[in-house]
Amino acid sequence: MRLGEVGEFALIERIERLSGAALGPGVRRGIGDDAALLRLRAGQDLVVSTDALVEGVHFRFGQETPRRIGRRAATAALSDLAAMGAGALGLTLALAAPPRLELRTALGLVRGLVEQGRRHGAPLVGGNVTRARETSLTLTALGAVERGRALRRDAARPGDRICVTGPLGGAALARVRAERDGSAYRHGVEPRLAAGRALGRLRGIGACIDLSDGLLADLAHLLEASGVGAELDAGRVPRARGLGAGRTRPGPDPLELVLTGGEDYELLFTLRRDGPDEAALQRRLGLPVREIGRVTRAGLRVRGAPPGLGRGPGWRHF
Amino acid sequence: MRLGEVGEFALIERIERLSGAALGPGVRRGIGDDAALLRLRAGQDLVVSTDALVEGVHFRFGQETPRRIGRRAATAALSDLAAMGAGALGLTLALAAPPRLELRTALGLVRGLVEQGRRHGAPLVGGNVTRARETSLTLTALGAVERGRALRRDAARPGDRICVTGPLGGAALARVRAERDGSAYRHGVEPRLAAGRALGRLRGIGACIDLSDGLLADLAHLLEASGVGAELDAGRVPRARGLGAGRTRPGPDPLELVLTGGEDYELLFTLRRDGPDEAALQRRLGLPVREIGRVTRAGLRVRGAPPGLGRGPGWRHF
Repeated sequence: MRLGEVGEFALIERIERLSGAALGPGVRRGIGDDAALLRLRAGQDLVVSTDALVEGVHFRFGQETPRRIGRRAATAALSDLAAMGAGALGLTLALAAPPRLELRTALGLVRGLVEQGRRHGAPLVGGNVTRARETSLTLTALGAVERGRALRRDAARPGDRICVTGPLGGAALARVRAERDGSAYRHGVEPRLAAGRALGRLRGIGACIDLSDGLLADLAHLLEASGVGAELDAGRVPRARGLGAGRTRPGPDPLELVLTGGEDYELLFTLRRDGPDEAALQRRLGLPVREIGRVTRAGLRVRGAPPGLGRGPGWRHF
Repeated sequence: MRLGEVGEFALIERIERLSGAALGPGVRRGIGDDAALLRLRAGQDLVVSTDALVEGVHFRFGQETPRRIGRRAATAALSDLAAMGAGALGLTLALAAPPRLELRTALGLVRGLVEQGRRHGAPLVGGNVTRARETSLTLTALGAVERGRALRRDAARPGDRICVTGPLGGAALARVRAERDGSAYRHGVEPRLAAGRALGRLRGIGACIDLSDGLLADLAHLLEASGVGAELDAGRVPRARGLGAGRTRPGPDPLELVLTGGEDYELLFTLRRDGPDEAALQRRLGLPVREIGRVTRAGLRVRGAPPGLGRGPGWRHF
């Protein structure tokens, strides 16, 4: 059955059923009224971020199951909360789709984001459905952070150490392989919410950003916001499985995928010189952490990268 | 210049500049980081609602200036806060547009929603821009309401009086005229935020909903959510200028526009029998208020309406 045959209110009802009983400690009212009602704890600030995934730009139905697309949308939205050091409260979804879209495809998208949201404490609390020529998912992630504990991307200072969680390039490699083999794109990443909250409590924390566009592109955002530069040691950047140094194969350079591949959703942050070391960080964050460079006054130098790579574009929309 | 020539980050910078210094009592951090940071007052709950306007479905560039489209998007989003009895904190925007869209058109949309948001205490605090085949604006309205004061659409009881603010049908009439004359669509409505807050403090308040889809369609939503019915007196519904009774002209029946025309963004609410009368309500809400019927156990009867009108569809999306 197609959306055009189902009707708007029946679709909303199906989405509401999928979202489950969204009521919880933070959710006073979920789907079904003019707006959702959420409660923060005393001393918390609200954190809010909006992200969109558009058919033909961010996903193609042939390449990925609807459920994985929905999951990826939720990951992207929640990752912005992680980058702020916030915990998750809830998600809202604006679903736009053509009337010819199959109901089960639409519900697959919703199921994927509901599951991923729930896994990270963010029930689907509201939203909107509308007709459109192409399918898109616009998610707003709502979170909460203790006052004064929010991370920011403009707080890096010259002399800071630059660190990153987790191995990088895995999402980009999975995409390259799916395109090469014509197979379905599958890659499971998680928003680093717990690690972000731990960073917010860390002595000596500088700036923080999540890796959605790729290490070099997101580092550039952080540096620009902070008005500083950096020296990066490409050899120290942790590489996802299959992207090890010293192996050659046809296709893109492994190091290029590590440095510029997007959608890893790991955290990139800076630390004052007297902050904790790698081993202590790893214990506090519960994730592999690697120190990969340091903040300078200006410019971006990448040691050990192919020439020209440091000027790569990352992901730009227009 | 077109968006494709401007680039994503330059566009975001222009939007940031238009949004002005969004910092205020409720806004700790606006555009420019991974997420916005808002502060509620002690004892308040967060209210959040998401709404989308899609080119070809909700607007056409030839019929309306970009600024008016943006304004209308903000009005729709903020009106959901009004329906909950909440005050406004801020707006986020997900703007999707094709690369061929003129920069000044995109900025016109943003200017319209920024101006309308600011007028109602809701600065633009964040968002997202993305490429798409058609232009759309997805707004998330963030607001705050004192705990226990949030209005709801499921709180009507048999015996309640049904009231509505402001004259209705004006937006629909303006649209009919614009289509008939081929002129630009212009109609200025405001979200009823102050009236909604006043209703939240009112002794004897029942249910509340804002009129986005048309009086009969939105009344049906309220009745369904509350599990009740209603008797409406069509003759008592306040009519916008140009829709007076007793005047006949070619085109749609004036009463039909009053009862089913959408986008008036007035408030429809129910009151216990011992609540304040029309004159007292008008003083408290600062708006014309009319009692137009009463809540019954089941069914919807509209006295004085053309046969069949009570079963009209309202605005459905699929």
